Amino acid sequence: MQDEFAFISNISPKQTKQPSLIYGIGDDAAVYRGSNETDEVVCVDTMVEGVHFRRDTLTPFQIGKKGLAINVSDLAAMGATPLYYLVSIAVPSSWTEEELSTIYKGMSELADFYNMDLIGGDTVSTDGPLVLTVTVIGRVKKGEAKYRNQAKAGDLLFVTGYVGKSAAGLALLLERGLDGEFSLAEQDLIKEHQEPIPHVAHGQILVNSLYRGALNDVSDGVASEANELAEASNISIVIEGNKLPIHEAMRHYDREKQLEWALFGGEDFVLIGTVAKEKADQVRKEFEEQGLMFEVIGYVEQGQPNVYLSNNDQVLKLEKQGYNHFQKRG
Amino acid sequence: MQDEFAFISNISPKQTKQPSLIYGIGDDAAVYRGSNETDEVVCVDTMVEGVHFRRDTLTPFQIGKKGLAINVSDLAAMGATPLYYLVSIAVPSSWTEEELSTIYKGMSELADFYNMDLIGGDTVSTDGPLVLTVTVIGRVKKGEAKYRNQAKAGDLLFVTGYVGKSAAGLALLLERGLDGEFSLAEQDLIKEHQEPIPHVAHGQILVNSLYRGALNDVSDGVASEANELAEASNISIVIEGNKLPIHEAMRHYDREKQLEWALFGGEDFVLIGTVAKEKADQVRKEFEEQGLMFEVIGYVEQGQPNVYLSNNDQVLKLEKQGYNHFQKRG
Repeated sequence: MQDEFAFISNISPKQTKQPSLIYGIGDDAAVYRGSNETDEVVCVDTMVEGVHFRRDTLTPFQIGKKGLAINVSDLAAMGATPLYYLVSIAVPSSWTEEELSTIYKGMSELADFYNMDLIGGDTVSTDGPLVLTVTVIGRVKKGEAKYRNQAKAGDLLFVTGYVGKSAAGLALLLERGLDGEFSLAEQDLIKEHQEPIPHVAHGQILVNSLYRGALNDVSDGVASEANELAEASNISIVIEGNKLPIHEAMRHYDREKQLEWALFGGEDFVLIGTVAKEKADQVRKEFEEQGLMFEVIGYVEQGQPNVYLSNNDQVLKLEKQGYNHFQKRG
Repeated sequence: MQDEFAFISNISPKQTKQPSLIYGIGDDAAVYRGSNETDEVVCVDTMVEGVHFRRDTLTPFQIGKKGLAINVSDLAAMGATPLYYLVSIAVPSSWTEEELSTIYKGMSELADFYNMDLIGGDTVSTDGPLVLTVTVIGRVKKGEAKYRNQAKAGDLLFVTGYVGKSAAGLALLLERGLDGEFSLAEQDLIKEHQEPIPHVAHGQILVNSLYRGALNDVSDGVASEANELAEASNISIVIEGNKLPIHEAMRHYDREKQLEWALFGGEDFVLIGTVAKEKADQVRKEFEEQGLMFEVIGYVEQGQPNVYLSNNDQVLKLEKQGYNHFQKRG
């Protein structure tokens, strides 16, 4: 399958037809001027049964909740406040009305948390698998939306939560199924996979404090997202392996497995971003005042738009989907 | 399949969580306040291969163009100016990259006409039929969006174009296929089915002139949409059969067939609405100045929210999907 936006990624803001369109094409969200004080942010994501979710790892409630969460996380990564959502579902006859209704209930639970309104949608029948498309609309202070291309040499790289939990949880679900027996620690991992909570408040701290920096969510894994920051900002990133926040529930897995999930697992809907080194302590303080995690995991340097993992005195080039052991840094 | 919005149609604006949300839930579009001067309008529609379109009646280019047109027509029915669109496609492996690209080209052709920007989307793979979800965003003068519930007794009912052409064109396509031979008149009908042009300018006349009145597009057929106006406005509507504008290319069909297509065919993306009787001449003049059609086809009365067809001294109750010969008016 071609990449998302394959057909439109070559459109730059300068080529847009609407003067109010600002930026964001090629990111997971678009930004346009709504008023003299605010910009609107809009994102859309599609989940297909059997491709993006499986009924043996997510309940209908969780399919809905996660479907909305994925989109809200795209808003969070811009620093936007979620406002509205629209839901389009193509549904096969194998789904009951009640199961379908439960998908909406899952979305509603998350939406209530952010005071989001469901303002539209379309429900149609299909002979194929269930296809769930969610559109979300948010708002951010004029000119203050966060993008991937704002990292500069000298910045520190941070994440706003543990990484790898979702992948570890998925592995457990695939091993034992929805009805399997799980320890409390395992349930914690599974919950992160099934019902992730987007880091909306985290993004808003950065917007409200007017810090310059790049921002993204970790939907496709730390390695992939760090590479996107490096490419968009045209800088080089070094990730310090021993600084990656690995949750206690993952401690008993061997180090190799931990790193694999943390770097390449994806679906951890925490944020990854950069801030100037001299601002990092202040940002950390603001996160801590709200009881939120802020973990520095590396730094930004001038250089080719590559990502390196510094781990146990070894430096590896980190591709989006894996290590490259042969291409040492230099 | 349950109706669109089945799960949310009971939400009223008073129950919304966002103070900036105005109206439109339950319509095909939602309206929210964007600034002190403008309201934002957003719509989403989904087309499934084999359910909403067939490859033996539409080319990939036309699937794209019509997919966007359907949504732009929802904006037109609010009087909004189209600005942006987002495209989400779940695509099976039976579609080539080139065909997929051609869908986008079809949308782009229509979008260029309105200066709309493609600002996002998602392209994913599926084992099922192609599912195309389009989200459109438009803008309208603050407080001036048109709704279905603004009809009043004494209004005249109008349409902004010929009705029944799309259904007649579809019948021809189903009979002879995409590669069939068609007369010029037949090609005109087919074009209306394959590449409808939404009536954006028509809706804007009503908004800019600040006329009070109900408005809708004829996507589901005159009978269905008139019933929606009657229900939303709690008034009674009489359609005068001899005033329905039937295009010359349909003249050779028998009267019964003409009426069937005009009333129940659907996918004529013209507008249907009401204006106060004393304003109708002025509105007609404004339409004519722009070379646009404005045809009065009936009138609004106090009474139960029903729709009647007055045809050859006979009055029939018009249901959304058919006549009711037994339930005479009175």
